[in-house]
Amino acid sequence: MFYIVGLGLCDEKDITVRGLEAVKGCTRVYLEAYTSILMVQKERLEAFYGKELILADRDMVETESDEILRDADKEDVALLVVGDPFGATTHTDIVLRARSQNIPIRVIHNASIMNAVGASGLQLYNFGQTVSLVFFTETWKPDSFYDRIKENVDLGMHTLVLLDIKVKEQSEENLARGRKIYEPPRYMSITQAVSQLAEIEQLRQGGILTLDKTLAIALSRVGGGEEERIVAGTLAELLEQPAETFGEPLHSLVIAGKRLHHLEVEYAQSFVVNKQNWRNVAHEVYGCALE
Amino acid sequence: MFYIVGLGLCDEKDITVRGLEAVKGCTRVYLEAYTSILMVQKERLEAFYGKELILADRDMVETESDEILRDADKEDVALLVVGDPFGATTHTDIVLRARSQNIPIRVIHNASIMNAVGASGLQLYNFGQTVSLVFFTETWKPDSFYDRIKENVDLGMHTLVLLDIKVKEQSEENLARGRKIYEPPRYMSITQAVSQLAEIEQLRQGGILTLDKTLAIALSRVGGGEEERIVAGTLAELLEQPAETFGEPLHSLVIAGKRLHHLEVEYAQSFVVNKQNWRNVAHEVYGCALE
Repeated sequence: MFYIVGLGLCDEKDITVRGLEAVKGCTRVYLEAYTSILMVQKERLEAFYGKELILADRDMVETESDEILRDADKEDVALLVVGDPFGATTHTDIVLRARSQNIPIRVIHNASIMNAVGASGLQLYNFGQTVSLVFFTETWKPDSFYDRIKENVDLGMHTLVLLDIKVKEQSEENLARGRKIYEPPRYMSITQAVSQLAEIEQLRQGGILTLDKTLAIALSRVGGGEEERIVAGTLAELLEQPAETFGEPLHSLVIAGKRLHHLEVEYAQSFVVNKQNWRNVAHEVYGCALE
Repeated sequence: MFYIVGLGLCDEKDITVRGLEAVKGCTRVYLEAYTSILMVQKERLEAFYGKELILADRDMVETESDEILRDADKEDVALLVVGDPFGATTHTDIVLRARSQNIPIRVIHNASIMNAVGASGLQLYNFGQTVSLVFFTETWKPDSFYDRIKENVDLGMHTLVLLDIKVKEQSEENLARGRKIYEPPRYMSITQAVSQLAEIEQLRQGGILTLDKTLAIALSRVGGGEEERIVAGTLAELLEQPAETFGEPLHSLVIAGKRLHHLEVEYAQSFVVNKQNWRNVAHEVYGCALE
């Protein structure tokens, strides 16, 4: 059997009981280490599972899937994935490959940011499409996310914005010279994300990401207990916060749509930057009927 | 501490290790029994957790939240919820109530259909808003879901349609007489859902839910191993299937949007009703470039 096991959002204890049982019965266990990060190190996972983990980076999952799937028709092999196996990055390629080899497959689901974003207090059924925001460079500022957010905003829907991470990135020089030397991991901060949104708003002038009129909720380490941070405010207010406010990565950002309900406004009040301004914008710009 | 613990999608083993530890340490454990169903009975959960569970129906969570929260500032109390605590039905009310009493709260996330729908092979970031479809009666056929699906379809986005369940329902007579006698639970089937969609399409004529031109994927018991069913086809094809094809409830339905990608079409081929027709419609109606 080939298991693809979601690890959930935070640490070694977020695996499900079913997932843990599967892992313990496997002869080989791969840990996918590129689409997201857990809050803990590989060694802590290994100690908890009682299994050695083989790190599977992007290269390996894409080019060596046959090695990962080796003998999975005769013994149990697992690929561990942060969040859910069909989260922001799906694992359809390796499933198709396994199917073509007649290897039985079992997916073990778990929480991912795609549903845990409900911790923001915003109703999941009012979210439109999810967008990804990549690190801008001097010469490369892809802005198609803006059209997607606008589609959601025009319908009043909320938008989950996933912030870029760069893991196992090569510098241009090392890439050019074919040297497999990697830069330290980078995670986009809330401040950088809001700056990039504002830059594109400035360029496109769609009036959908106005700093002082757009309400947003920043999330990090959802489900992580003491480490979880949820912070609500206008984009301008989020931009002014010191980095500590938002805690450790990964961060995500929600742009609130006009369907914002007064109960959602109320729910967020325990984690807003400025309660009065939050309510004012909700009332005056979003048209929420507040008491 | 007041814990709200997501149980995931299927049975007693879908709880996370963190969730299980929390439950074992609680003095009182409530099982919310109205917004969704697990595939197993309460007794099996009790045996696995080693705890007696107190059933909390809609009445109780809404009107007796103070009883649920009693002493949660001094001891540990848990409310168990199928799926994720912030799934289709959120638990913001009881969180607000707990906050107002200064009771510390910890949410333990899990998979819900809102992210596990990725098992359909459709990319989660191409889903628009989620809609709910309720049981029609002779005199009550609420059709606002149609406008929501149309908003998604117009943008090419996929739509997750959650099908109604009726648990602890009273007949009109029993309701009128104030008798607390309840009907057996009812779960909307895929066939009934497609019939209702077709009925409203007939009425509204928006051309978005045409039986032989709309691709859809039916899901039941996602993550449930042998019990999981995923079936893809046109709405017309799904309508013709015998009930056994779709397995046991709960069922959900995905309406594919025009952003359908050729890899999504390919992925679904292992669970389509008619492979050739699936590809034809994907190519001719959805404009997918297939080999």
